[in-house]
Order: sequence, then structure tokens, then C-alpha cells
Amino acid sequence: MKTEHIPYKIYLTEDELPKAWYNLRADMKQKPAPLLNPGTHQPMKAEELAGVFCEGLIAQELDNDTAYFPIPEEILTFYKMYRPSPLVRAYCLEEKLGTPAKIYYKFEGNNTSGSHKLNSAIAQAYYAKKQGLKGVTTETGAGQWGTALSMACSYFDLDCKVYMVKCSYEQKPFRREVMRTYGASVTPSPSMETEVGRKILAEHPGTTGSLGCAISEAVEKAVTSEGYRYVLGSVLNQVLLHQSVIGLEAKTALDNFGVKPDIIIGCAGGGSNLGGLIAPFMGEKLRGEEDYRFIAVEPASCPSFTRGVYAYDFCDTGMVCPLAKMYTLGSDFIPSANHAGGLRYHGMSSTLSELYHQGLMEAVSVKQTDVFKAAEYFARVEGILPAPESAHAIRVAIDEAVKCKETGEEKTILFGLTGTGYFDMVAYERFHDGQMDDFIPTDEELAAYRSKLPKVD
Amino acid sequence: MKTEHIPYKIYLTEDELPKAWYNLRADMKQKPAPLLNPGTHQPMKAEELAGVFCEGLIAQELDNDTAYFPIPEEILTFYKMYRPSPLVRAYCLEEKLGTPAKIYYKFEGNNTSGSHKLNSAIAQAYYAKKQGLKGVTTETGAGQWGTALSMACSYFDLDCKVYMVKCSYEQKPFRREVMRTYGASVTPSPSMETEVGRKILAEHPGTTGSLGCAISEAVEKAVTSEGYRYVLGSVLNQVLLHQSVIGLEAKTALDNFGVKPDIIIGCAGGGSNLGGLIAPFMGEKLRGEEDYRFIAVEPASCPSFTRGVYAYDFCDTGMVCPLAKMYTLGSDFIPSANHAGGLRYHGMSSTLSELYHQGLMEAVSVKQTDVFKAAEYFARVEGILPAPESAHAIRVAIDEAVKCKETGEEKTILFGLTGTGYFDMVAYERFHDGQMDDFIPTDEELAAYRSKLPKVD
Repeated sequence: MKTEHIPYKIYLTEDELPKAWYNLRADMKQKPAPLLNPGTHQPMKAEELAGVFCEGLIAQELDNDTAYFPIPEEILTFYKMYRPSPLVRAYCLEEKLGTPAKIYYKFEGNNTSGSHKLNSAIAQAYYAKKQGLKGVTTETGAGQWGTALSMACSYFDLDCKVYMVKCSYEQKPFRREVMRTYGASVTPSPSMETEVGRKILAEHPGTTGSLGCAISEAVEKAVTSEGYRYVLGSVLNQVLLHQSVIGLEAKTALDNFGVKPDIIIGCAGGGSNLGGLIAPFMGEKLRGEEDYRFIAVEPASCPSFTRGVYAYDFCDTGMVCPLAKMYTLGSDFIPSANHAGGLRYHGMSSTLSELYHQGLMEAVSVKQTDVFKAAEYFARVEGILPAPESAHAIRVAIDEAVKCKETGEEKTILFGLTGTGYFDMVAYERFHDGQMDDFIPTDEELAAYRSKLPKVD
Repeated sequence: MKTEHIPYKIYLTEDELPKAWYNLRADMKQKPAPLLNPGTHQPMKAEELAGVFCEGLIAQELDNDTAYFPIPEEILTFYKMYRPSPLVRAYCLEEKLGTPAKIYYKFEGNNTSGSHKLNSAIAQAYYAKKQGLKGVTTETGAGQWGTALSMACSYFDLDCKVYMVKCSYEQKPFRREVMRTYGASVTPSPSMETEVGRKILAEHPGTTGSLGCAISEAVEKAVTSEGYRYVLGSVLNQVLLHQSVIGLEAKTALDNFGVKPDIIIGCAGGGSNLGGLIAPFMGEKLRGEEDYRFIAVEPASCPSFTRGVYAYDFCDTGMVCPLAKMYTLGSDFIPSANHAGGLRYHGMSSTLSELYHQGLMEAVSVKQTDVFKAAEYFARVEGILPAPESAHAIRVAIDEAVKCKETGEEKTILFGLTGTGYFDMVAYERFHDGQMDDFIPTDEELAAYRSKLPKVD
């Protein structure tokens, strides 16, 4: 254990970078519930998934036992272009808040996709290329995942077809242009290009879209196009596996200075960032080696953990995907226009859902205007203009640090700063102009969506 | 000299960060020509500048002898929030080009202002605060300087009034919102707010503005407002001084691995990035210790070095500033709409002009479409979407690396990657759509502007 001064930013050396992804499921006694065939309600087999997903990724998806997957050399090379990401000691924020808490954040925004999404995008593109595919299809909410996948596909010379949630497409005109720079094609969803898109548009003509709709369109496009598969930026086990680089790097950096966090906080849409950040820490907790508090932060407008139910549900609005057991609001829940586009998903990672269900993790929901207050405060104090999604974690990190001020406790707080908000300035503008509302679904609304959950014994 | 593997990204430790700025002028035998009073044509004295500039900065501006200025503690603290910037070994670019050249770039884009401008902004805000001022005024071209100054002023709780070149204001609607996040007010220039703005609008009703116009407006606003001074993001000696952190960090990083660059390349608008990047290397050349090739890259649409004259000229269109001896196209030269907003200045740093005049530095001009080709190529290969300004340096770095491929020479190339292009997607869109033109002024046009230079004996 080193005892020297902790720098503002801790960068690992290349030698210290993770060489393998960590599979949290291997240390879970109660494994996440398996994906089910929507027709037979039997666990999905690898061969059933092969029409939708890439082979190498299916193996990772279904493997609940292997603790470490070596990271292929080509991916390690790409990681070295933009990783390690810095672990930042938020000295300025601590001082401004006057808190005795010690605050750290793992900042994943220093790459052109602007977020952590690139960690899984490059892995998924690699396995698609390895399988000899022509290209991949996907959906994107805030646009970060689509940008990340465009970059990854460009690197491996794969075709990339992105369905972008319509409200994000309209709020973020420049995101499309970044994806185009990397050679991707981008379609606002729901679209008239797919059967499921046409159906959703017929039923909800004015819809601003949702991740659930866009997933359905991307899956349909993949299964009906020769040499294409579908890839997804969150929710799935494989994505949490790839994102474990966030937590592994953060843990090594903290270990180098003998620091142990008390509270670990991440925003949660589908769960990719949170699952990746907490992975090695949760592993220690599951193995009984250490204890940590974990807090998932979700928007009050789309509160899967805090107001959803733990049940089997469709992953997409069009019901073309397998059933997953997760905390869900119902697959046809379409949140009100919410500027944190990346957190608009109706469900939550099965792995995180099981951990939450077992009481190993907490969850809170926060209102959008409170989130933007925290975002602006953080931008001014720490110099990084955060993505609205990331600012959910900032909000709760600040709240916890203020509690420490009140109690005098010197807790160590680690949170995930998933990305930057440079393409979210329309949302910031509304906030500045006082035109931002807090959308909170009523109990009646949620009950109505819940009543449509599939019946699984 | 270490001989180990050179990592993809070299980060200095906090201990290795520069503690003092390096003043290149101290090592110049022939000093840059002094600023002149526009009425008397006598060298400007500190007291004459005091109505426009902050005191601490005037001392730096006029000092041609002190080699090192210690960086104040408050600024070192702010630097630690976003520095060191990485020195990147462009392994992927080298491989893709198939060149034996070794390419390095110093990447200054990993902060919310998106560029190197923050290095001087925080210094200038510090001295304004130290003097007890209420606020500062400035101009911004591409918006990077304005954003940087907004961040710096927010940190020191100063008011910030930005005049933004109109074409950038219109092309980059979200830049304004970032500045607003940091509490700045932003006015498109020329505006009706100032006398000089009204005059320029009357003479050129359809003008898209220029840095020269915006400077005049900001200076007028500063001298007519109680407790305000004017600050400038480029051109001035003080700015090059602050930007020397770029070169000092780069040199330490290279020295740590025993690497000596053969060619050092930077884009040049007013000269702040280039002057900062080359500072310690040029110092060695001036002292006869080492030799390097230096290449300034400017847009063919605004070719101060390559097609301008070395003469005294006004720094601004409104002729309210002191006269500076520099390579200039004439102070009322307004370049055609050019997407590299930060390189639209009619003149060039006096220091760099003198070095160029002495033959210590080369300059080339490049066409905009060629620049965007390099930008897109670089984005795909190295994963960073560059600012159009920065891509000027990329263009020439690639050209030099390709020459090495032809000759088989293993040259080491260092270039400055000043920033990211996330707010330049309108320009990228035009490029993708084949709607981008190359504007090159004719000899007759340049001669007409030149004929209006002030007469100085």
C-alpha cells in the first residue's frame, strides 16, 4: 500500500490495464434467470440465439461460470488508443461542497463516442468480424452507443446500421453526422423500414420512440438481412462483461493507493455502466471478502428498479426478442420525452436485477431538473460538462457527500462519470431557459403497463 | 535515456508537470518588434496598455528577457484538473499509412473547452481576479476560446462577455449553450452593441464577421465598462507564454523515452498553439543546442505567412488596438466563410512572425477539402474526431509521413492536435454532402487589402 499524495488524476500504465474481462455471474450463488424462448418459455439455447447474435458473444452471454475471459489482442490494441480512462479525485468538488467525504469518479468520456459504450462496441464488432459477417444492426438512445458502434465497425471495416430513437435523433442532429463520419447509416425509429416500425407507427402515430421500439427494428433488420447480426449496447450479460474494464481499472487504481470505497454509485438505464463499474467490487462482496454499498440511480420518469416489478418480460416493444427476467415497467412502456435518452429503457439487466432482488444493491430515482442542477454545478466546479445520464450519478454522489458533511463521516465515494454532454446542449438550453419539466408516471399508468406482462410459470 | 516500449499514450506524473512557463523571446537574439501606439508610432508603454489589459499580463507581454515565469499555485491547481494532456504515439496511423516515420501528437482536446485554449484562459482570468476586476471581455472565432474563458471565469467568479464571430455563432448553436452553462453572455459579432460594430455593419451589411471585427468590439466594450479589461486568446506574447505548457509537457514526455523529433508541425491562426508547442524546442534551436524543422500550417483561404507581408498593422478591423509587426493580410481582410473558424485571423503572432522572417520556421497553406479528408481519415484510424483547425496539422503530418514512406526515412514527427470537432459537425456535414468549397483569395484581392496597411517608418 502506497501512502503518498493521491494525484488529481490516476492513470494506469499499459502494463496495469486489464488483460481479461471479469464475469460477475461466476461469483453469484443465485445466477441471473436465463433468457426464455418467447414461444416455448424454455431457456434459450445457443443455436436458437445464433440467428440474432454473433457466435462469440452468445458463448459469453450464456456462460455463468467462467470468471475471466481473456481480452483478444486486437481489442487490447484498440483499448490502448483511448484507455486507461482516468480515475479522478474530485478535490475541487470536495472543497466546494465542504465535505469530509473523499470523492472519486471514473471518467469514461474522453473518447469520440463520448462514453463508456466504446468498451463493448469494439468487443462486439470484433466477434462479428471474426465470424465473417458483413455488418451489424443496432439501436441507439442518446446516440452514444450508435457512435461507439460506428467507430468500432469502421475500425474492423464492418457495415453499421443504426436505428436511433426519434426524440434523440431530433434533439441531437450532430450525433448523426459523427456516425456518418465513421461510415454508419442512421434511421430515426420507429421507421417505415421495418414491419414492426410500421406497426408501432400505426398504433402510436405521434410517438417519440423508445429504446424498446428501436431494438425491435434493429433485430428485424438483422434477421432479415444476409450476413448481418444484431448487437446491443446494454442490458445483456455480455455487455456487462465487457464493461467490467471500467471497474477493473478503477479498482487497480484505488488499490495502488490503498483506497477502499465505501459507496459506489452509477446511473442505470439498461445497466451496462453500473454493472461494469461495480463488477470487481461486487465480486468481493459476493465472495464475502469485502463489503460495499452500491447505489443504482435511475430517472424518476423511467423508474424500473424503484417502481417496476421483477418478472419475465420482453426486451423490446415489438416482442421479437427472448424473454428476460428483470425489473421492468412493461415492454410497451414509452417514457415521456426525457433528455437522458440513454436511460429511457423499460427494463434492466438481468444480472443487476437479481443482485437488487437479493438486496445486494440499492436504487434511487431522481428528478430531471435536480439532475441538471447537479450537472451544471459539476461542470463549473470540476470542469467537465457531463452527459445527462452521467449526471444522475453526480446528483446522488453530491447528495451522499452532503450527508457526510452533516454527520462528519469521512466516507469514500466512487461514482461512474460515463460521458460528456457535448451533444446534449438542447437539453441544457431548456434547463437554462426554465423550460424543463419533471415527468413522473402515476401509479395507475404503471399498473396499466404492468398488466400486459407475459404470463410465465 | 529509457529504452523500453513506448506506450500508446504518455502521461506525465503530477511531479513532472511544468512549474514555470517558458518565454521563448528570452532566447531570441532579434526580439519581436514592439507594439506601437497607433497615434504616435512609439513603442507602447505599460501604462498605455493598462486601460485595455490586466496588469499582470502586461508585464508578461512586454518582458522579452525573463526566460521562466513561475506558474501561480492557483493555476497549477486548475491545470491538474485537466492536465497533463496525453502525448500520443500514433501507432495505428503509422500502420495504416505504412510509413517508417514515427508519429506523435500532443492532444489538447480532453477538456470541456475542447482545445488548448484553456491553458491561457485560466491564466488570464487569474490575473484579472488578482487585480480585483469585475469581469473581462473577449472575442471568439471557432468558439473554443470563448468556452475556455467562460470556464476560467466561472472558476474565479468573474463576469465574462464574449463577442462571437457571426459565422461561427450561426454554425455552432450549441457552443453558445456551453458558454451559458458557465455563466457567460455571448453576442454575435459584428453587433449593434458597440460603435465599431455598428460602423462595420453599415459598411459591410452582409458580413459573416471576422476575428478582427470581434476583437474591436470586445476592446471597445472593455474600455467603456468600469472594472473590465480585454483578454485575447491568441496572437499576443503572453498567450504564447502560457501555451508553452504544451511544448514543455511534450518535451518532458519525449525526453523520458529518449525521443527527439525531426519535424514539429502545428496549425497556425494567431499562433497560440504553434508557439506553445514549439517553444522549448525552438529555444534549443535558438541556443544552438539542437536542430528541428518547424512547420506552420495555415488555411489557403487565410494565408498570412505564405502570402502576407511582414509589416506593422492593426490587430483588429476597427483599428482600436496597438500596431503589431507581423505577417499580415491587412486588418480589413475578411476571409470567405471558412469552417476552420479559429484560423480566420488576418495576422500572426509577432514572435512567430519574427522567427519565420529569420528563416527559423517554415509555413505551408492547405486547402479546406484536403484538410477534411485528413480529418475524416484520422478520426477513423486514431479514433479522435478532430477540430477543423487541428486537422490542418494532421494534413501536413500525414503528407510528411507519406514522404518518409517514399524515401524510406524513419523520421520522427510531432504535431499538435489542438482540439476536438464535436461542435463542428455542420462543417463535417457539408464535407460529407460534397458541398464544401475551397476559397482561395486572388493576388489582386490580397494586393488591395495590402495597399491599406498603415505607414510606419
